Amino acid sequence: MTESVVRARLVFAYDGTDFAGWAAQPALRTVQGELEGALEQVTRVPSLRVTVAGRTDAGVHARGQQAHVDLPVGAWERMPGRSDRSPADGLLTRLNGVLPQDIRIFAVTEAPDGFDARFAATERRYIYRVTDTIPDPLNHRYVLAHDRSLDVGLLNAASGMVTGLRDFAAFCRGREGATTIRTLHEFSWARADSGVIEATVRADAFCHSMVRSLVGALLVVGDGRRDVAWLQEVAASSSRSQAIWVAPPYGLTLEEVGYPPDTELSARAEVTRARRVL
Amino acid sequence: MTESVVRARLVFAYDGTDFAGWAAQPALRTVQGELEGALEQVTRVPSLRVTVAGRTDAGVHARGQQAHVDLPVGAWERMPGRSDRSPADGLLTRLNGVLPQDIRIFAVTEAPDGFDARFAATERRYIYRVTDTIPDPLNHRYVLAHDRSLDVGLLNAASGMVTGLRDFAAFCRGREGATTIRTLHEFSWARADSGVIEATVRADAFCHSMVRSLVGALLVVGDGRRDVAWLQEVAASSSRSQAIWVAPPYGLTLEEVGYPPDTELSARAEVTRARRVL
Repeated sequence: MTESVVRARLVFAYDGTDFAGWAAQPALRTVQGELEGALEQVTRVPSLRVTVAGRTDAGVHARGQQAHVDLPVGAWERMPGRSDRSPADGLLTRLNGVLPQDIRIFAVTEAPDGFDARFAATERRYIYRVTDTIPDPLNHRYVLAHDRSLDVGLLNAASGMVTGLRDFAAFCRGREGATTIRTLHEFSWARADSGVIEATVRADAFCHSMVRSLVGALLVVGDGRRDVAWLQEVAASSSRSQAIWVAPPYGLTLEEVGYPPDTELSARAEVTRARRVL
Repeated sequence: MTESVVRARLVFAYDGTDFAGWAAQPALRTVQGELEGALEQVTRVPSLRVTVAGRTDAGVHARGQQAHVDLPVGAWERMPGRSDRSPADGLLTRLNGVLPQDIRIFAVTEAPDGFDARFAATERRYIYRVTDTIPDPLNHRYVLAHDRSLDVGLLNAASGMVTGLRDFAAFCRGREGATTIRTLHEFSWARADSGVIEATVRADAFCHSMVRSLVGALLVVGDGRRDVAWLQEVAASSSRSQAIWVAPPYGLTLEEVGYPPDTELSARAEVTRARRVL
């Protein structure tokens, strides 16, 4: 016997500093653990499972993270606290009422048909933040302090060499047998007014530690310790390169997840699932 | 017998979250305690005393804080690590090498004649940050979440009523007998692109908890719970008003300290000292 469910779509953010990453782990404080606990508390449904767009590592932040959760219709319809609110608004308010301050839900909606936070996503956009001057201590949880000067022009020229459809094996901490072919839509650097340098990285999907490995490889080129020929050589490696430094997690923020128009959601999710199985 | 000293001027910043305020206290982690400890460690001079421009409360942040410390000439001249560096540059690098990440020194210079970080200052500029929408958890240590909508136009109109040369007794947590007359140069509100509302507060000096009391009094006007007549009434009180809510410390950042031209430093310090004694 199955009760029919409503799929809720969540847009949310977190400061990753005090979390052991997204994925729930026994006895550790994780974003998934906190979020599922809050959902179970406010809906009074046991054992809910949240599916997220981007499984972030320990210490990585998110500003435009997305997820879905399937709720029994009865629980969904109990959500409005006042008669003039929708179930989605009620769930939003209640979740923020019980979640810790380092997680905030920005939006709850009833998901369109075919929506799957993970498989329907077409793009993840990350920003890695680094400073080559004395760091502002009010940003020290979010910005890497790099102790050599960085040349933004050089960073952009070198980053252009690793964009597009490629095998990113050199930058992937491997799971045996999984494909490491990805399409890197953008890898660009810009210095903000504050002096902080922001690396924008956009791709259809990322393998494990890929963004931080790309950033780590580029920083040693941008500060002059390695040259572009070195980057081309390590990028061509068919397996994880030991020469590549993985930049620390706290500079990294998942800023946005992209989805196709609602009418194309189901088709997109099918394509993604098929590719992951291959 | 006295050894001649060099007065070093420090410009620095800190995230106040994990400090019990500026002022050194036994067994508590304070900014003064950390800074004096770092200075003693790198100069090998015992019992140094730092004088700060703005003594911030527990939880209050600073981005453009200033201070001075008097160092024996011998210790100052030992500071360059390499011959091509000045003592000031050497001290800057060494301090940042031993200080925790939530304090950073931005500049060290040999202070001009007559410089006194506290008494020569002509202005302190603070910003209080508050949001009336769902707060970004990546800013939750620096921005107050206010659960009612705020009218920025109304906030500015009401703030204009408490600027200028006035007795701020209603907004001062008292020290018996100390003057509560101050000149409030600016108290203005603006909504940033991020949606965060920033209150800029500039004055020659502030009494204890004055900025947070001003902000607390204005927020209940800006969200419609109190009217302008109420503000005028409480502002006219000749002693600390119990009707005024003190906004929490974490929204507050000391952004900048102003000093007169170098030639006027001594005169300014004398005027300030004389006024405090009265």
